[in-house]
Amino acid sequence: MKPTLIALSLAAMFGIADAQVTGNASGYPITPVPFTSVTVNDAFWSPRLQASKEVTIPLAFSKCEESGRYTNFEVAARQLAGEDTHEIIPGGFPFDDTDVYKTIEGASYLLQTYPDRHLVAYIDSVLEIVAKAQEPDGYLYTPRTMNPSHPHSWAGSKRWEAVEAGSHEFYNLGHMLEAACAHYTATGKRNFLDIAIRYADCVIREIGTGEGQTLVVPGHQIAEMGLVKLYLVTGDRRYLDQAKYFLDYRGKTSRKDAYSQAHKPVIEQDEAVGHAVRAGYMYSGMADVAALTGDTAYINAIDRIWDNIVTRKFYVTGGVGARHGSEAFGDNYELPNASAYCETCAQIANVYTNYRLFLLHGESKYYDVLERTLYNALISGISMDGGAFFYPNPLSTASDANYARQPWFGCACCPSNVCRFIPSLPGYIYAVRDNSLFVNLYMGNRATLTVGRQKVTLAQQTLYPYNGDVALTVEKGKGRFSLCLRIPGWVRDQVVPSDLYSYADGKQLAYSVKVNGESVDSELRDGYFVIDRNWKKGDRVELHFDMQPRVVEARYEVYADRGRIAVERGPLVYCAEWADNEHEISSYILNRKPVFSEVPDYLIEVPADTRYSARVIALTTEAQTISTGADGRVAVKDARLTLIPYYAWDHRGQKGGMDVWLPVQFRLGQ
Amino acid sequence: MKPTLIALSLAAMFGIADAQVTGNASGYPITPVPFTSVTVNDAFWSPRLQASKEVTIPLAFSKCEESGRYTNFEVAARQLAGEDTHEIIPGGFPFDDTDVYKTIEGASYLLQTYPDRHLVAYIDSVLEIVAKAQEPDGYLYTPRTMNPSHPHSWAGSKRWEAVEAGSHEFYNLGHMLEAACAHYTATGKRNFLDIAIRYADCVIREIGTGEGQTLVVPGHQIAEMGLVKLYLVTGDRRYLDQAKYFLDYRGKTSRKDAYSQAHKPVIEQDEAVGHAVRAGYMYSGMADVAALTGDTAYINAIDRIWDNIVTRKFYVTGGVGARHGSEAFGDNYELPNASAYCETCAQIANVYTNYRLFLLHGESKYYDVLERTLYNALISGISMDGGAFFYPNPLSTASDANYARQPWFGCACCPSNVCRFIPSLPGYIYAVRDNSLFVNLYMGNRATLTVGRQKVTLAQQTLYPYNGDVALTVEKGKGRFSLCLRIPGWVRDQVVPSDLYSYADGKQLAYSVKVNGESVDSELRDGYFVIDRNWKKGDRVELHFDMQPRVVEARYEVYADRGRIAVERGPLVYCAEWADNEHEISSYILNRKPVFSEVPDYLIEVPADTRYSARVIALTTEAQTISTGADGRVAVKDARLTLIPYYAWDHRGQKGGMDVWLPVQFRLGQ
Repeated sequence: MKPTLIALSLAAMFGIADAQVTGNASGYPITPVPFTSVTVNDAFWSPRLQASKEVTIPLAFSKCEESGRYTNFEVAARQLAGEDTHEIIPGGFPFDDTDVYKTIEGASYLLQTYPDRHLVAYIDSVLEIVAKAQEPDGYLYTPRTMNPSHPHSWAGSKRWEAVEAGSHEFYNLGHMLEAACAHYTATGKRNFLDIAIRYADCVIREIGTGEGQTLVVPGHQIAEMGLVKLYLVTGDRRYLDQAKYFLDYRGKTSRKDAYSQAHKPVIEQDEAVGHAVRAGYMYSGMADVAALTGDTAYINAIDRIWDNIVTRKFYVTGGVGARHGSEAFGDNYELPNASAYCETCAQIANVYTNYRLFLLHGESKYYDVLERTLYNALISGISMDGGAFFYPNPLSTASDANYARQPWFGCACCPSNVCRFIPSLPGYIYAVRDNSLFVNLYMGNRATLTVGRQKVTLAQQTLYPYNGDVALTVEKGKGRFSLCLRIPGWVRDQVVPSDLYSYADGKQLAYSVKVNGESVDSELRDGYFVIDRNWKKGDRVELHFDMQPRVVEARYEVYADRGRIAVERGPLVYCAEWADNEHEISSYILNRKPVFSEVPDYLIEVPADTRYSARVIALTTEAQTISTGADGRVAVKDARLTLIPYYAWDHRGQKGGMDVWLPVQFRLGQ
Repeated sequence: MKPTLIALSLAAMFGIADAQVTGNASGYPITPVPFTSVTVNDAFWSPRLQASKEVTIPLAFSKCEESGRYTNFEVAARQLAGEDTHEIIPGGFPFDDTDVYKTIEGASYLLQTYPDRHLVAYIDSVLEIVAKAQEPDGYLYTPRTMNPSHPHSWAGSKRWEAVEAGSHEFYNLGHMLEAACAHYTATGKRNFLDIAIRYADCVIREIGTGEGQTLVVPGHQIAEMGLVKLYLVTGDRRYLDQAKYFLDYRGKTSRKDAYSQAHKPVIEQDEAVGHAVRAGYMYSGMADVAALTGDTAYINAIDRIWDNIVTRKFYVTGGVGARHGSEAFGDNYELPNASAYCETCAQIANVYTNYRLFLLHGESKYYDVLERTLYNALISGISMDGGAFFYPNPLSTASDANYARQPWFGCACCPSNVCRFIPSLPGYIYAVRDNSLFVNLYMGNRATLTVGRQKVTLAQQTLYPYNGDVALTVEKGKGRFSLCLRIPGWVRDQVVPSDLYSYADGKQLAYSVKVNGESVDSELRDGYFVIDRNWKKGDRVELHFDMQPRVVEARYEVYADRGRIAVERGPLVYCAEWADNEHEISSYILNRKPVFSEVPDYLIEVPADTRYSARVIALTTEAQTISTGADGRVAVKDARLTLIPYYAWDHRGQKGGMDVWLPVQFRLGQ
């Protein structure tokens, strides 16, 4: 079925098919190249996509089934059909519906790489159940519809009444919109999109400043992003306006707390505060509105907040959201390692925000942040076999040596979030502005895209991040355009786009670019190496990045990292884990200027599913252990320390010590 | 000349002669035995008194002379005589007059041990100069009188106007009263006392809530204590009332800050805050009023504040006042070692407070606090030769290896304060309540005192704190009374009367008491071993305290002491100093359960004046040093560590490292 929506051209956003083919008339300054245009086929990411297909998505659907998430829709439908469901006490979480939406979203992205009509049919069957739970006016929120008169109904005594306090009616809408747009883009089917449009229209009718409307904003943000996607898919400006209303009235309703970023108007905010997932989704929504409207108040606000994050509240792993308990950003420089929260969802939100800021500003620094988060704090959130999940992603197990990934959580936001994120990754590699083609991520793929007026098929071959060699070949098409190759911050001696961290080893990494075997040179423009030429079929660009291991230290203000270093190689942050080392991880002390050797074929064996065992480049270095006997006598021994990539820890089927920041100093006393 | 004052019987307070002879009709629940009744003759304190006589007091008088403190009185007198002194710009500190008073006070106490008519005559000559600076109505404050119209006059454009802000008119009154009472008691001369009474009467006329009076309270407390002394000397209740007015209106005038303890009414205060000397003098004044009036609101307030200090704000050295900069109490558990302020004046104030609380409550715990402060943080403030002074008394030189005692200070409060305190010490040894005689401090002395109706001469012989053997002999007199021997907290496994610190070595120290060679036993009563019997000439009591070195650790809340221990022996806290050890002090790490050997005749040589070199009991223990090479490689070596008493550090003519809290743990990272 051919979709008949207007403004489909805008739908390129976030993997909505074909948009960049027809231009970018009212979209972002920079046009995404959607996941539908790219097929990933490399050594690093393909196993992740495969695990999504074979393990994560099936697991997520089965969890939705066995945990009663489908039943919620069915009970709501029975209530709507006139059956008496008043004995049902709403249970679970008020956002349980979203796990269903998010799994459909992830499955939809996957269909690009792995077409699967059984999966399409399964999704359709789920959507039938979902559709029946929708009230006649479009409202779709099972915790209320199941038994609307129940005093424990999450939504309060009437609709929207508790939406700022925790009923998540708008949060569920947001995830529904995200999922429905992905499903529509991947399949061309409207069955989910129509449900979503009806719920969105219901909200637009009932919520706002008009007469008879309710003036509320989301307690947990994401509807802002979702509405923008719906605007891009449909071209209906009302959805963008509603997203902007949700942002503009934030802090002006009864809820005025920093925890939900409602302490002041969003355009006056300048520090990342409160619940990190809500924050990240809101910043993404703000970046959307900033980019799509060009409103400078929005642009200034989101730029200030980003500055605050990267200069003060950003882990070396790319993690954000330091605080346990409140799942929140900490104070400036509050970056504890063992108690680092770094909720997996917040990492995904951080990728969303930085992606949008790139689309707004076109500077590579946003991708430097995105890449650091992606390769470390984010993929740490899911095991290499796709079947186990971290909710928090700590940088040390010093306070809990039994910490390990779990097969699922009652509060399933994180697993279902990676479930939808990983398959969407192909959409993050390329982008286009006029005659410029941005290559933002290095992973083997084949992409068919339009730059200027040229349709081009490009093949990217690389073993990145195992090594720093990337080849790009023009397989089809020709014409003049600029190829903009992102030279990552870590090659340019910049750990993050701020002085929060710095390289402490005095090394200078080099990079080089060849076109058809000939070295070329260029000034970097906004972090990109730009090659402007007439391209033709068979043209081949070879990129090389030095990948020597590097030593990072944090600003003195970061108390938790004092006297410690972190180790990186390429985009990967390393850690020391118990399984690779003879002594307690916490007893090792590195030389002040450690020298590392690479172990190129180091096996991380995944006992749970050996198909996903992987060979990584381990690093080893001369070190010492310091320990204290029962009598308090201190003993120092020479000991070699082995490091593995951070994302690869906790795959050995046993639990034990892990540290990212390794001591190079000791202090007497404690 | 025989003083004709009424209520001289009350004058026993703080060394005012003969009071306890005639009873305690309207004074403290417990009657002091004044310095005039006691002659100290032991190995530990006699050299201190001798240094006061030979070095400190002459130095202080010479500093008063050469720094122009006498000149200030002379210029004020010229102005009063009608001379034009308007060209004089008031300089120095507004409390410079008090150094003159404090030195006279110290000299007066000394006259008991070292009668000296030349000294009496010198003091008289100073008092002549002082007397002439007194305005006709009694006002005596040279910074104003010198040039009352000068805009920089410390006292503002009129009297008392700046007294809460810093003009110190009442502070100077307070020290004058303290000194005048001591001088009168020691000499029987009224020349200073009459000056003081006139100034006190001037204040009573002009300050208060009555019509035409000014409603102000002291910016820097001490007048409260001084007025109480004047009440005890004269029996004139107006002085006690004025002291109570100063306390009762504190926090109710324009000044309302915690820095000067004026944030709320004194009887509502429950935490030691603000400038530690002001605080200590105020708490002493409050304890005076509490004890002399029995006002339960006062008693409850001063008890709460004392609890706060000993449970939260008390260094192991007995030091109080943690914060540099504001010279103030820190927050609860804020007890940094290198930046410990522990101003010498604040230690003296702490002795004053605890002495008065003992006189109010009769419990030995106040003397446990007093003894700890006295033997450690207080006498650290003056060199063994009496010629050099600490203003702050840190517990570590980690942040300033060049820290050393100075021969004097522009702001001379600390030197002139030890100048008056050390000679007053004999008045702190004994006290009497009805038929009970309290022995609170152990130092060799002979005392003639009245207990019940018996006049007794008692000799105390001891090498305390070198060892724990004390002999008390009834040399004259007989009769039934209770001898109450304080069994120090450190013998009873209590570092302080709270759980702020504890002994970490599992040792149990013993003590024993013999009467005429026969062991006696007794339950302790309020910390005292009580022997009730008919005493007769020649009766001999022998006391023994075990004095094995002990290991102290702090509550976990005291961040600065984590992973560290302190070492004590008897009442003395020990430290490690550079001069006795081969390696950097900061590189030593002790065994977790260190075993100490005593070096009984360890010489601390005082190069400045070898007459005051002293033999101490040093402690040594097996330890290690940990150090890091330039490459960051850690090396551990066995090394023996030598410790000396804390008060004895910084006597070697050179500067270097010192630490009281020694590491038994290390932490990786910094």
